[in-house]
Amino acid sequence: MHPNTLKGSDQMEREKESVAVAGAGSWGTALAMVLADNGHDVRMWGHNPDLIEEINKHHTNQKYLSGVHLPVEIRGYTSLEEALNGTDTLILAVPTKAIREVIGKIKGIRKEPLTIVHVSKGIEPDSLLRISEMIEEEMTGNLLDSVVVLSGPSHAEEVSLRHPTTVTVSSKNMDAAEKIQDLFINNNFRVYTNPDIIGVEIGGALKNIIALAAGITDGLGYGDNAKAALITRGLAEIARLGMKMGASPLTFSGLAGIGDLIVTCTSVHSRNWRAGNLLGKGHNLQEVLDNMGMVVEGVRTTKAAHQLAQKYDVKMPITTVLYDVLFNNVNAKDAVDLLMARGKTHEMEDLANVLEDQSGNKKN
Amino acid sequence: MHPNTLKGSDQMEREKESVAVAGAGSWGTALAMVLADNGHDVRMWGHNPDLIEEINKHHTNQKYLSGVHLPVEIRGYTSLEEALNGTDTLILAVPTKAIREVIGKIKGIRKEPLTIVHVSKGIEPDSLLRISEMIEEEMTGNLLDSVVVLSGPSHAEEVSLRHPTTVTVSSKNMDAAEKIQDLFINNNFRVYTNPDIIGVEIGGALKNIIALAAGITDGLGYGDNAKAALITRGLAEIARLGMKMGASPLTFSGLAGIGDLIVTCTSVHSRNWRAGNLLGKGHNLQEVLDNMGMVVEGVRTTKAAHQLAQKYDVKMPITTVLYDVLFNNVNAKDAVDLLMARGKTHEMEDLANVLEDQSGNKKN
Repeated sequence: MHPNTLKGSDQMEREKESVAVAGAGSWGTALAMVLADNGHDVRMWGHNPDLIEEINKHHTNQKYLSGVHLPVEIRGYTSLEEALNGTDTLILAVPTKAIREVIGKIKGIRKEPLTIVHVSKGIEPDSLLRISEMIEEEMTGNLLDSVVVLSGPSHAEEVSLRHPTTVTVSSKNMDAAEKIQDLFINNNFRVYTNPDIIGVEIGGALKNIIALAAGITDGLGYGDNAKAALITRGLAEIARLGMKMGASPLTFSGLAGIGDLIVTCTSVHSRNWRAGNLLGKGHNLQEVLDNMGMVVEGVRTTKAAHQLAQKYDVKMPITTVLYDVLFNNVNAKDAVDLLMARGKTHEMEDLANVLEDQSGNKKN
Repeated sequence: MHPNTLKGSDQMEREKESVAVAGAGSWGTALAMVLADNGHDVRMWGHNPDLIEEINKHHTNQKYLSGVHLPVEIRGYTSLEEALNGTDTLILAVPTKAIREVIGKIKGIRKEPLTIVHVSKGIEPDSLLRISEMIEEEMTGNLLDSVVVLSGPSHAEEVSLRHPTTVTVSSKNMDAAEKIQDLFINNNFRVYTNPDIIGVEIGGALKNIIALAAGITDGLGYGDNAKAALITRGLAEIARLGMKMGASPLTFSGLAGIGDLIVTCTSVHSRNWRAGNLLGKGHNLQEVLDNMGMVVEGVRTTKAAHQLAQKYDVKMPITTVLYDVLFNNVNAKDAVDLLMARGKTHEMEDLANVLEDQSGNKKN
């Protein structure tokens, strides 16, 4: 157990549990560290044998968490079956694009019900399913105990350095969410529960769109005033859609809403912001994706959110503009200038939509 | 008129007006530039004769806006009487501590009613008045036409570089607010109206408290996750107090709420953040104030907000902790650690207070 954890008022008796983590990227590894710090037995699965060997032999993951020493309680496996052996809980930390494939593998292995904690942020284009819905759809035959989502302002790099971090867990089954809260919580990693799974998932997914746009305005050199305006309007647009989908407006004022949005739009760690920054500097989407070498969830999410805006008939000006920049070759500067220079307006007109949608009045 | 302004769809016929600006600091000067860009005759008052001479002779204000060339339409005056000559509108851009003194001077000079646009952010300790209320109290004998507040995410440095910026104007007299909107709006400087003057003033004032606290967590090296959590909780705490005082919750989701809060907590331009940063690095309040050489409004506002929290019986944990750090010699690290490591909680408990307060239920 790391000396920085479980001190002071937070000292609690904890049962040692066995937890599997699928995905050996930066977030999966950082979460594995939190679990190991809490005294759990952590079984981490990844498909790259060299990386798994590095984890087991050197207790590092240089590609994704450079310079960080991993607790020895984290054991790596290249076999998903072995990783899942003897555990009822899986932390699913793979890109949204890989979720159906990994669940497919689990179905071929697993006989007993499993609780899946997903920590990815996205919406599936075309199906327009949230990630918990994708998992429920894919995990057939009583194999699924519960799905829990863990989200919030939490760059993996900082979590791996045991800097103070707060996250939210949510589930349709709040008993399961509370169990996951107990599993992760310690003095550095504060876990709150929130019963609004729709809001938590939508907030986490859509903030990546605003982060791409914020990267663009920064890439254009427009400064902090412009970015703050963009984030403010971005939150309103996320809340408008989320509430039409059944989310609570309160969630967007919380950690999984504005909290995650702020950290993703203002931190140099954010890969969506970095991708947007390159777009703002004049690179096209393919160049940016080649340059990043990591998944940029916001690109796929922009496509999905653009479809959701049409489906639910919600005005999402930032999403629309970004969709045009990413997929219709619209010039980033022209698009952002158009967004900024709207006619003179009553601020409340924009904001009032939120509460009107909330109270069930249909606006067209 | 600067070539970057009033182009494209925003081209509008504008009557040339004469506007006085009291205060030759960075924000007063940047706003004078916007007015000059819009073709107005700007009469700027400052008490430092060297600075006024620099403005008139060299068209610069190196101390407050280093490297920026001021439009020649800005004329400096050391006499407030001369600056106010022939104008009905005064932009009041002085520190909150100086407001009563400046208004006192105006009363000795002025015979005709004046519209005052205040652009300061604070609450007066002890009287607990918002700035518009201070002005109303001080400006007796029909000398006051209207008070308008202009607020929002707007670092002066960026406005002076004509980077895109959005602000909100509010007043009890919305006709006056719209007149001020027309005076300032151009393609770079977007002005929105909002009838909720209480929310606009409270949001602007209290964000400086959260910026001080954010500077402390950054000074302690706690990172972006911790700061995002702090901003999220800070917004909830501002909204809780604001709504008890009669503000609309929507305002805190807008430019004068979360927008201004984000820019002040995340930008290197923010002097409140910089003061907090020094506190987090172990300096005491007096050292910090000596080091800054500019007014740090958040220090005074913390005192006022601490009194307001007691008066309105609202829980404001960040304000309370910061008050203890500033005025009771509590160690900054101990205080922030206490704030971060609260027991495990249901996130909605915190957030629900906001809506309960809004619907008029008294919580104790």
